[in-house]
Amino acid sequence: MAPTDRISMINRHISDEIRHSENQVSFRLTSGESEITEESHSLVMIPGPIEFSSDVLKAMSTPSQSHVGEPFISTFSETLSRLRKVFYSENPKNQAYVLAGSGTLGWDIVGSNFIQPNENALVLSTGFFSDSFADCLKAHGANVDTLIAPLGEIVPLNAIEEALKSKSYQLVTITHVDTSTGVLSDIKEISYLIHKISPSTLVIVDGVCSVGVEKIEFDNWGIDFVLSASQKALGTPAGLSVCFASERAIEVALSRPKSSTFFADLKRWTPIMKSYESKKGSYFATPPVQTITALNVSLGEILIDIEQRFQKHIDSSNKLKDALTALGLKFVSKNRETSAHGMTAVYLPQGLTNPQFLGFMAKNKIVLAGGLYKGIATKYFRVGHMGISAVDDSRNDIDKVISVIKQAIKLTPL
Amino acid sequence: MAPTDRISMINRHISDEIRHSENQVSFRLTSGESEITEESHSLVMIPGPIEFSSDVLKAMSTPSQSHVGEPFISTFSETLSRLRKVFYSENPKNQAYVLAGSGTLGWDIVGSNFIQPNENALVLSTGFFSDSFADCLKAHGANVDTLIAPLGEIVPLNAIEEALKSKSYQLVTITHVDTSTGVLSDIKEISYLIHKISPSTLVIVDGVCSVGVEKIEFDNWGIDFVLSASQKALGTPAGLSVCFASERAIEVALSRPKSSTFFADLKRWTPIMKSYESKKGSYFATPPVQTITALNVSLGEILIDIEQRFQKHIDSSNKLKDALTALGLKFVSKNRETSAHGMTAVYLPQGLTNPQFLGFMAKNKIVLAGGLYKGIATKYFRVGHMGISAVDDSRNDIDKVISVIKQAIKLTPL
Repeated sequence: MAPTDRISMINRHISDEIRHSENQVSFRLTSGESEITEESHSLVMIPGPIEFSSDVLKAMSTPSQSHVGEPFISTFSETLSRLRKVFYSENPKNQAYVLAGSGTLGWDIVGSNFIQPNENALVLSTGFFSDSFADCLKAHGANVDTLIAPLGEIVPLNAIEEALKSKSYQLVTITHVDTSTGVLSDIKEISYLIHKISPSTLVIVDGVCSVGVEKIEFDNWGIDFVLSASQKALGTPAGLSVCFASERAIEVALSRPKSSTFFADLKRWTPIMKSYESKKGSYFATPPVQTITALNVSLGEILIDIEQRFQKHIDSSNKLKDALTALGLKFVSKNRETSAHGMTAVYLPQGLTNPQFLGFMAKNKIVLAGGLYKGIATKYFRVGHMGISAVDDSRNDIDKVISVIKQAIKLTPL
Repeated sequence: MAPTDRISMINRHISDEIRHSENQVSFRLTSGESEITEESHSLVMIPGPIEFSSDVLKAMSTPSQSHVGEPFISTFSETLSRLRKVFYSENPKNQAYVLAGSGTLGWDIVGSNFIQPNENALVLSTGFFSDSFADCLKAHGANVDTLIAPLGEIVPLNAIEEALKSKSYQLVTITHVDTSTGVLSDIKEISYLIHKISPSTLVIVDGVCSVGVEKIEFDNWGIDFVLSASQKALGTPAGLSVCFASERAIEVALSRPKSSTFFADLKRWTPIMKSYESKKGSYFATPPVQTITALNVSLGEILIDIEQRFQKHIDSSNKLKDALTALGLKFVSKNRETSAHGMTAVYLPQGLTNPQFLGFMAKNKIVLAGGLYKGIATKYFRVGHMGISAVDDSRNDIDKVISVIKQAIKLTPL
């Protein structure tokens, strides 16, 4: 897809009327007062960025620290070891990576470290983001085959089995939750299948919209690489590419004959991450001190009881989906058991457009997202329900969203 | 240079005793109290990250906003247009780029957008960072020639002229300030020479340690691309790659037959940046909303009077350098007129080691940096004096540093 096509597919949210005029910014600069507060700001219920906890936001404004001084080394070390717990991983030769970047950078890490030009990749596509991952691998010279699921469904296991038997694949990519459709793939089942049919193939998971909300037993399930980002269920402002690699994936990356990149090169980053985790400073590129400090706070919150957190996400997801179903609304993801627990893609009722619907939501200070899947983008909207909005009942975020959606759809007869 | 060599060259700062124990973090999470405050934290006087203003830190904790909603679109638009002013650029076809990343990512942007495999690049090296830029271009397949300046000096113009006459170069890289040595190159003079001898060669500037402190008249001087990062004189926490490209550089990037990267691809990013600047949301990868908001605040502060800001940096630099000279200390950069105004690399007095010296500074709550240049890394230290520490006299940061250095060098007879 050409970059210009992407732009026309943007899910531009119609948000509230707050604007930073030149005057307002000057005011803010001189008085130190902020025009948007945690209390006054619109509730952001899109599939990332999500709402952030007060402690996470506070950590974002940590005063300056040296990136190779003791306080930050301790923070970063803890962050990297906490990520092991998020992935239920106990193999010390696996490694977490936290880089300045976004989920998209994770695709480049895969394309430039785990596959070489003209090697084969199999992409399991459940939506727009799966297809973009394929585009990235092609840019890096991979031969990409894509198995496209029917809209709103997962790729059938027998199709994957057939593909794996037909050709030797260096890696398979699975988009755990495709944020364009809300379809949830069963990465455990697919990984088991790959290990059975083609044990040397690397199992790569795009976990941008899943890490922190959907359980991932990295070691037990035989996953080789998960890429994610900070601004979804990891509960931290955007700006971090967060990845987790298996021992064998790291061996593949480190034994590449030639690096084709610098910033995304795991040969550069692996010793840096190992060094920070073992509480020694190290330098390749300056890490985003404040955002990593915020991630560490968020991981602390997540790990208070991660099992309960997953369950709360399931409960909140069911609550929202049940309520919307009761209103007569239909979902893009066809089956509840293969639907994401951190977001929901919902068809608009007949006669209601996204500018009308999202505009009404925005006037009521709730920001939702438009559609993103080719051909139906104007026909549905998306709700994010990750992090504190899903797990902190005292916020009532899920109830607020249901209540305002209920009013919004009255704008048109169902 | 192998990644492991880089690690052994780390400038690990010996900082104060604050550590995040498991208990302290729990405390912080439950009470919302922060253990490190703007008042209590050690003064960070390294060549980036620098000290950040209160308003910049406050902007880092801006509550969540949609990355494609009105408030953030306005902020990002203003950020991109403010960058034009920082570069004194009036050609609307030039473009600023702000991505999640670091200065290092800027090298990849150059290596993957402006030069193709087997094309020639000329690197003017004044230190470690110039050489790293060369490593990055080599990873992208460029044929790299490096002109290495004598330690502490600039590359002589006649050597550059000779090189330009001997071979056709797609681009020349100049490290405006090499943070390892504190040497300042005259990018105006070099750019004029390149345009005279080899007008089709792109003039690429590494401005990581210069943008915001050293004046850059982008259009007038015929620069094609400047890469920088947020955490130095741009006065914003680490996490942003900040670049500025000329019309002809953009044409080169957009007309490349094949992209070899995804995340660093200007074909992807150019329409996104143009879209945001013209106040339309757009999506390729999620931008770091909070850090960009903070950059916008910092740019507002910088642009209150940028000429005066440059002069204040010169004055503070001279004040520090004069005081250290009076103490009998020598600088790595040999001539004042080719020395950076935002940092100083200083030889330790005979008999004093970096662990002793930096340790003493740290005990007095001032964080300085060790050396970084091959062969002499253990023999010198580095002081950063950019942003509020250089321009806000009421902080007395320069005086504090001079005063504690004066005590530190008494640890040993000069």
